[in-house]
Amino acid sequence: MEQYLINSLDIAGTLAFAISGALAAARKDFDLFGISFTAFITALGGGTVRDLCIGYTPVSWMRDMNYLYIIVLAVVLVFLFSKYLLNLHRTLFLFDAIGIGVFTIIGMQKALALDIHIVMAIMMGITSAVMGGVFRDTFLNEVPLILREEIYATACLLGALIYIGLEYLGVHPVLCLTGTIIFIITIRILSVRYHISLPKITLHHEP
Amino acid sequence: MEQYLINSLDIAGTLAFAISGALAAARKDFDLFGISFTAFITALGGGTVRDLCIGYTPVSWMRDMNYLYIIVLAVVLVFLFSKYLLNLHRTLFLFDAIGIGVFTIIGMQKALALDIHIVMAIMMGITSAVMGGVFRDTFLNEVPLILREEIYATACLLGALIYIGLEYLGVHPVLCLTGTIIFIITIRILSVRYHISLPKITLHHEP
Amino acid sequence: MEQYLINSLDIAGTLAFAISGALAAARKDFDLFGISFTAFITALGGGTVRDLCIGYTPVSWMRDMNYLYIIVLAVVLVFLFSKYLLNLHRTLFLFDAIGIGVFTIIGMQKALALDIHIVMAIMMGITSAVMGGVFRDTFLNEVPLILREEIYATACLLGALIYIGLEYLGVHPVLCLTGTIIFIITIRILSVRYHISLPKITLHHEP
Repeated sequence: MEQYLINSLDIAGTLAFAISGALAAARKDFDLFGISFTAFITALGGGTVRDLCIGYTPVSWMRDMNYLYIIVLAVVLVFLFSKYLLNLHRTLFLFDAIGIGVFTIIGMQKALALDIHIVMAIMMGITSAVMGGVFRDTFLNEVPLILREEIYATACLLGALIYIGLEYLGVHPVLCLTGTIIFIITIRILSVRYHISLPKITLHHEP
Repeated sequence: MEQYLINSLDIAGTLAFAISGALAAARKDFDLFGISFTAFITALGGGTVRDLCIGYTPVSWMRDMNYLYIIVLAVVLVFLFSKYLLNLHRTLFLFDAIGIGVFTIIGMQKALALDIHIVMAIMMGITSAVMGGVFRDTFLNEVPLILREEIYATACLLGALIYIGLEYLGVHPVLCLTGTIIFIITIRILSVRYHISLPKITLHHEP
Repeated sequence: MEQYLINSLDIAGTLAFAISGALAAARKDFDLFGISFTAFITALGGGTVRDLCIGYTPVSWMRDMNYLYIIVLAVVLVFLFSKYLLNLHRTLFLFDAIGIGVFTIIGMQKALALDIHIVMAIMMGITSAVMGGVFRDTFLNEVPLILREEIYATACLLGALIYIGLEYLGVHPVLCLTGTIIFIITIRILSVRYHISLPKITLHHEP
């Protein structure tokens, strides 16, 4: 049951990430390969970096064909329904929030399974959730959005802490998972609606 | 014989990739180190990502000094004959097509040798052939060309399928190899001459 | 004694790299997460690539919490004293030079400990020292500075050769280390003061 829920959320998140990558690539006038490449990197880049850093090779997506099918599905959807998908931004935003939640938790669990220190495991969770978007923007030759704006990685960090807290209190795994995802979605919605963002540093530039 | 042919083609391809990286870096006003770095990344970046993903470490170029010698040769050639090399673009195009062909096949074989699923092995072949060029353009702060234009990764994919088909039919390895490389060169020439490219998506941007 | 010295210099270098990353990110208007991310990548990106290429996983910074503490310290310092730090550029330059020196030596030693060929070990040393800065500039969407200007990677290469030479002559490890670092600092100061740089290639661009 727990594994089934994680898998379902993982699919929803991977699909949302892949669609976000494919749409961004289409906007940059990429061709079919470029769109597929960007969808792939966005959805699976974070998990790949995590797997490499913790030494889990061959990397996860090589062991499970389903990830590839999800990328193909995302590319087909974007080719057929790109204009419609652009209007679905609320749904995609929701799926993306689900994605970063479940990626954080899965990433953390994979690291913990390899006996990696809990703090590093949390970092690996955040890496899983965030690095794909950083790669997407970098290959598109843009400054990564999530390094500048919005509560994003912070939502992952807080979500990871909540998850660990709930698990420590002996809460049922399904509730830990659901609670964390709902918490992350809430944080994301609040931060976008009320323009809450992390502090910056004001540096005066020489003209 | 087969190994000898693969090695010769591997050298030709690596040299072409390294020269392409060095010339691109020189055009961006990089210094000797920057030119060497870009030559290295372009020629060996794809294979490095492949080795990391399949868990083959230390990575291939660390086990064989010849790759380093080829990079050094490419940088020396570019320093001595840059203007002449720019006029050799037909030769470089041919070597590059040989390169993506042989990199695809070598990459695929390395993955298969580690018992990786054939579909993933094909992806690792394409990664070997394509990722170096993506890194080159990214470090040069440009949108990777092969994500936008031309039949490039597609030629690798079709070549990989042809190679597997020929091997399955029991064709002699040397003929599989030669046939695949000639096929990829043909695809590349046709796609550039007749401006054949992969489909894109037209998105209307808000002004 | 030797290990104590290496650790102290490693801390100074990591701190300098992290501060340089944090300041560059702040200049690009990144938020707290973006600043921390860039500080991390700048300080630990080179060592991570080295560890992945030589197959040393989980990567070094996962095995030692101190690196994380140094990154946090750098981010706090930059948030509290950014304007003051900008005036400390001579100190930061010195720390950075110490950093590339000690990173080169540590990187080389880690590779040699895994029985990697000395030439490749030197390359891994240079990678440790240089790749973090390349990542910093790439994620900030700029052409990496050290690929275009100044004697930087070359100072690492020369330092590595000097270190090996001194070690070969039976010089005490502490003297090898100190001598190499002082040599690299000298090269860096001279190259910046007298605008010494590596050769470039002049290519005439079509207008």
